[in-house]
Amino acid sequence: MSDTSTLTENGKSHTPGALPKAAFATMSGLDIFERMMAGDLPAPPIMSHSNIRMKEFSEGRAVFTGLPAREFLNPLGTVHGGWISTLIDTALSCAVHTTLQPGEYYTTTTLNVNMVRPLLETSGEVICEGRIVHRGSRLATSEGDLRDANGKLIAHGTVSCMILKPS
Amino acid sequence: MSDTSTLTENGKSHTPGALPKAAFATMSGLDIFERMMAGDLPAPPIMSHSNIRMKEFSEGRAVFTGLPAREFLNPLGTVHGGWISTLIDTALSCAVHTTLQPGEYYTTTTLNVNMVRPLLETSGEVICEGRIVHRGSRLATSEGDLRDANGKLIAHGTVSCMILKPS
Amino acid sequence: MSDTSTLTENGKSHTPGALPKAAFATMSGLDIFERMMAGDLPAPPIMSHSNIRMKEFSEGRAVFTGLPAREFLNPLGTVHGGWISTLIDTALSCAVHTTLQPGEYYTTTTLNVNMVRPLLETSGEVICEGRIVHRGSRLATSEGDLRDANGKLIAHGTVSCMILKPS
Amino acid sequence: MSDTSTLTENGKSHTPGALPKAAFATMSGLDIFERMMAGDLPAPPIMSHSNIRMKEFSEGRAVFTGLPAREFLNPLGTVHGGWISTLIDTALSCAVHTTLQPGEYYTTTTLNVNMVRPLLETSGEVICEGRIVHRGSRLATSEGDLRDANGKLIAHGTVSCMILKPS
Repeated sequence: MSDTSTLTENGKSHTPGALPKAAFATMSGLDIFERMMAGDLPAPPIMSHSNIRMKEFSEGRAVFTGLPAREFLNPLGTVHGGWISTLIDTALSCAVHTTLQPGEYYTTTTLNVNMVRPLLETSGEVICEGRIVHRGSRLATSEGDLRDANGKLIAHGTVSCMILKPS
Repeated sequence: MSDTSTLTENGKSHTPGALPKAAFATMSGLDIFERMMAGDLPAPPIMSHSNIRMKEFSEGRAVFTGLPAREFLNPLGTVHGGWISTLIDTALSCAVHTTLQPGEYYTTTTLNVNMVRPLLETSGEVICEGRIVHRGSRLATSEGDLRDANGKLIAHGTVSCMILKPS
Repeated sequence: MSDTSTLTENGKSHTPGALPKAAFATMSGLDIFERMMAGDLPAPPIMSHSNIRMKEFSEGRAVFTGLPAREFLNPLGTVHGGWISTLIDTALSCAVHTTLQPGEYYTTTTLNVNMVRPLLETSGEVICEGRIVHRGSRLATSEGDLRDANGKLIAHGTVSCMILKPS
Repeated sequence: MSDTSTLTENGKSHTPGALPKAAFATMSGLDIFERMMAGDLPAPPIMSHSNIRMKEFSEGRAVFTGLPAREFLNPLGTVHGGWISTLIDTALSCAVHTTLQPGEYYTTTTLNVNMVRPLLETSGEVICEGRIVHRGSRLATSEGDLRDANGKLIAHGTVSCMILKPS
């Protein structure tokens, strides 16, 4: 039984933590996110671990929400920059992923995060949007920001990715 | 009863997730890390949440270990860049923190991460070291890297911090 | 008698390459750029040296044009990333400068540049726009991009600045 | 007859500002720098334009000197971050270039610069060293710093490059 069949028949049974390899080979990035949102493909473990949820995907754009929690606090009592960076990396890298054709892969090589305001355990749900800036055949970049429920900017950043086409 | 007394008498009872405010006011950065390693001050929640452990601190240098786990995987089945960034942010920011005098605070404003090799759930424990590069009165920067048990470089980066002296 | 002379202390003509110190103390950032465009304050030397011209300033936004030339080429025969970075740094830092009140100063601490397409000696005039993203009392960030005459993206980036208020 | 002429196709003298294409195809990166230092290959125009000189090259390491001048000043009267970035980009990108085999090319995709101290027209010669951090088959990164004659750190940074092997 191939990965492909688990994709089409009972998508919930494959290895937690990874898309079946066939997904990248046969589906576009947008298809993958649509299937994930529909529950037909597994959401990656990092998402529940970090209280992150998928919200919206279109070509070149990916939006996630995140809920701060006590587990994410740093010694200063604010939300750790690592949690903020996880959301920024997720949204901006997925913005690149939404532009992939079947058979294309990608890897994020550089993440740059500007943290402009502290985020608190009590800040409530935040929203993080990634937007493609450049999509070439080998290189893609995206930018995006993380805001609280009132639209206040907490952090923004950029990501640089390599586009790979295994032969 | 002040925060200070909880520090000296029964350090384990304060709010999870934050150092007592008195810690920053009365202790140097190095003192704080020594107390954390001794268990007299609470380690921040992000650490157990992200499988991160304190390893070594000296002035201008902070070393942590981290253990990849299934919960940290991204859709590609590799460890999410957010986990890598959490470790890089932790080690590099704490390298700055080790240089603080009592009464000084800091905030990390920019995090830059170069991810050069995939990290796997099966890669085993990694080590992440942060080293101060510049320590001025208002600005500090550090650099550092994350390596696997064989010394293979997984990621490296830089951090820029503002030093604050509330009056 | 121009207003410029009032800016120079004791009628001494100021050092080429620097605004009179009084400019920062008594004028807003926008005022300074308006005076520079009017020729009442000196444009900094880097501009003619690098074929850069001021184009437009409003609060939180600064636009410059630049003309590639043979002097800016790297060994690969394309325009050196340093010239691109000079334009990005100029536009993004000046976007922050446009938000300064009299008596406020600033310094750029981090520059991040993503170079996405080669720029040629024959590419013709480029336009580089900087836009403020965050303006706090101590920290400001901006983003922006450099495009050729056809709107093609050559590079984009972010800048982080410290806002200073000497007492 | 010099070797340079064999590099120019059909005896045509090459365009100032660019290495003959044959150079990348037939010489290693280190060979190219050795020839440049010997004057057998042209130094790129950006160097004399920006008062930059080659100092030392070994595999994975490139060192340049630079001399601040009035032409590089910004409105604050200090050396423009663009000149600093030009040196950082040069040394760090060339550190990657020293690792290229004949037939390999590269392009710098991300430049990150931390500016930690002002540089003055009167600061005198500075030295900028780039060191390779990671050299993979498709991705390379380097780090480095710019110091004044007393060893004081002015700026440091990282660069990310794509390695290309045209077929």
